[in-house]
Amino acid sequence: MALDPVFAPITRRAPELPASLKLPAIKPTTDTLLEHAIQQRLAPAGAPEHALGRMEVLVQQLARIQSNSPLEFDLLAFESPQLVVFAADHGIADEGMSDLEQSMTAEHVFQLLLGLAPVNALAQTHGFELTVVDAGVATHVTLPEEAHRRAPLLPRKIGHGTRNLLLGPAMSQAQAVSALHAGMDVVRHLPGNVIALGDLGVANHVSASLLLSRLCGVPLADAYGRDDGLLDDSLHQQRIEKLSTAASRHRKAIGVLDVLSTMGGFEIAMMAGAMLQAASERRVVLVDGYVAGAAALVARGLNPAVTDYLVFAHRAADTGHRMLLIHMQALPLLDLGLRVGQGTGALLAWPLLLAAQGLLEN
Amino acid sequence: MALDPVFAPITRRAPELPASLKLPAIKPTTDTLLEHAIQQRLAPAGAPEHALGRMEVLVQQLARIQSNSPLEFDLLAFESPQLVVFAADHGIADEGMSDLEQSMTAEHVFQLLLGLAPVNALAQTHGFELTVVDAGVATHVTLPEEAHRRAPLLPRKIGHGTRNLLLGPAMSQAQAVSALHAGMDVVRHLPGNVIALGDLGVANHVSASLLLSRLCGVPLADAYGRDDGLLDDSLHQQRIEKLSTAASRHRKAIGVLDVLSTMGGFEIAMMAGAMLQAASERRVVLVDGYVAGAAALVARGLNPAVTDYLVFAHRAADTGHRMLLIHMQALPLLDLGLRVGQGTGALLAWPLLLAAQGLLEN
Repeated sequence: MALDPVFAPITRRAPELPASLKLPAIKPTTDTLLEHAIQQRLAPAGAPEHALGRMEVLVQQLARIQSNSPLEFDLLAFESPQLVVFAADHGIADEGMSDLEQSMTAEHVFQLLLGLAPVNALAQTHGFELTVVDAGVATHVTLPEEAHRRAPLLPRKIGHGTRNLLLGPAMSQAQAVSALHAGMDVVRHLPGNVIALGDLGVANHVSASLLLSRLCGVPLADAYGRDDGLLDDSLHQQRIEKLSTAASRHRKAIGVLDVLSTMGGFEIAMMAGAMLQAASERRVVLVDGYVAGAAALVARGLNPAVTDYLVFAHRAADTGHRMLLIHMQALPLLDLGLRVGQGTGALLAWPLLLAAQGLLEN
Repeated sequence: MALDPVFAPITRRAPELPASLKLPAIKPTTDTLLEHAIQQRLAPAGAPEHALGRMEVLVQQLARIQSNSPLEFDLLAFESPQLVVFAADHGIADEGMSDLEQSMTAEHVFQLLLGLAPVNALAQTHGFELTVVDAGVATHVTLPEEAHRRAPLLPRKIGHGTRNLLLGPAMSQAQAVSALHAGMDVVRHLPGNVIALGDLGVANHVSASLLLSRLCGVPLADAYGRDDGLLDDSLHQQRIEKLSTAASRHRKAIGVLDVLSTMGGFEIAMMAGAMLQAASERRVVLVDGYVAGAAALVARGLNPAVTDYLVFAHRAADTGHRMLLIHMQALPLLDLGLRVGQGTGALLAWPLLLAAQGLLEN
């Protein structure tokens, strides 16, 4: 960084990215004329300014995403909303970094496919079509023949779980690029203009914490904060120490793709790709909890314009997620202390987008 | 308070209440067996404990309201949800305690009746039947003959606005009792098992602040806190001083009915009555913002069991509301910085109750 930031040329593409990575172009949505028009339309007569608070901000964002000029703008329209849950395993689970066995990842995928997870009920209520993507589950995921499957499973396995990032990079740069491309590809083949992204994978909070810590300079103890008081002190301390060891092993990873490769996960990379693609198609992107948030950090690192399209649905129970949202300058719609992932918070927040639509129609 | 609280007899009825006040009996909903059954039913296999966070608490509360024993309990069922907005004027508006003219109360009533307020759109989306109650608007509220009315206006005027509480009690004790009874009566004649309560009235935040301050011992400067930075310092200081003068004039008001009479509002009294009646009928009560919250304080003062039935929908932008919720030990479902009243926050939160229903069905 020899140049003063003020004089630095605006680069849409980080300079260290390999030529093999093909990213879609994303158009920023800023439009002050439209914002003014919306504000006029929303303000109830005789109400204080910004009476609708966070809802006004939401309406503004959705309107910017769905329109290009105040003249053309009509109303918000949501079509064929999609929920995509990316599942993958993490080698770091071997280090006892989660209270769950690694095999629970596949178990959770089964539950989703069979319609037994909480998010299935929400998807059904709200008319979201669910797609589960195997981004890299450690085992071969296959349902018994006779099982009544409720959602398709897309096989996009980049590997059988990432490698243990305490011992080496979680994945190669080529794998990271493949995962980003796969995420883009998944979105490209889905209909609609709204997409909610969820995650699933034992120990994926470890990657989220490391990514947040490295990309935003958040201390590991905050990024991997305790939220529940359930964990015993010494176990938590051991985990923090392992994270520090991992972070110092990968201390040379600074660029976003290096950070993703060395300390990320397949589902995180794919979600980042999905976000970039969805933004390039001007879809509304509902971002779920901490792990999806880490994917948003990666996507922002690859193209800052993506953030215009991201609606942060909720704040999860993780203290790291709070830090992440602050660094994204994102005000989540809900704060319900969820710790369940899989897009559950995104779908719980969905009715607020419908309400935003209704407020504008009134 | 001669007795140590531990040895004080549990009184369901504050001793100073006049015989003319007839309150309905309310059954507390505690049921640990049911809670255990629900927790078992909700917990996704292999998910951390309380993975659904605030949603689990909500499901538990709704289930307790709608059932008496785990054996009988089936599923949550919501019928004919009602939105009731209580409108009234406040004599204290004469003191320049609001940025709005008093005449805006009637104006807002018109907007609601004509379906032009933000909450109208939400009520329509969610199938809430709206009733507007004239609890004491200063003027005669009448719509032009040709106007297309969207909601009924119930005339339950206790007076043409309260008196200026800086000069004397806002209302007589007899008026307060009448208003409580009217609120009970309004609910008694409405169908369904869910009721959302909203408020409308210029300067009603003054009463809410004084009630919170007196009933919970919150300093006036916190109860009437600034939230927006829009108000100029000296004007805010003047308002706080007027509030202090009012509080000291009514320093002898300690009992809940005295506090309500001297510093409350007609719509606050009616909402409190409505809450008590709704709880006695085991309805779910959605409590909107700061002013409805002050009514909840009053209702709790009259019968603590009412709180089992109150679902605090959102935290408004007012800093006083934050204090109020803490004193009610209430965790609101939403925190969207609304400053619009009229039940808007309650209806924005409603889909979370539907989600709670869906989660239990899964």
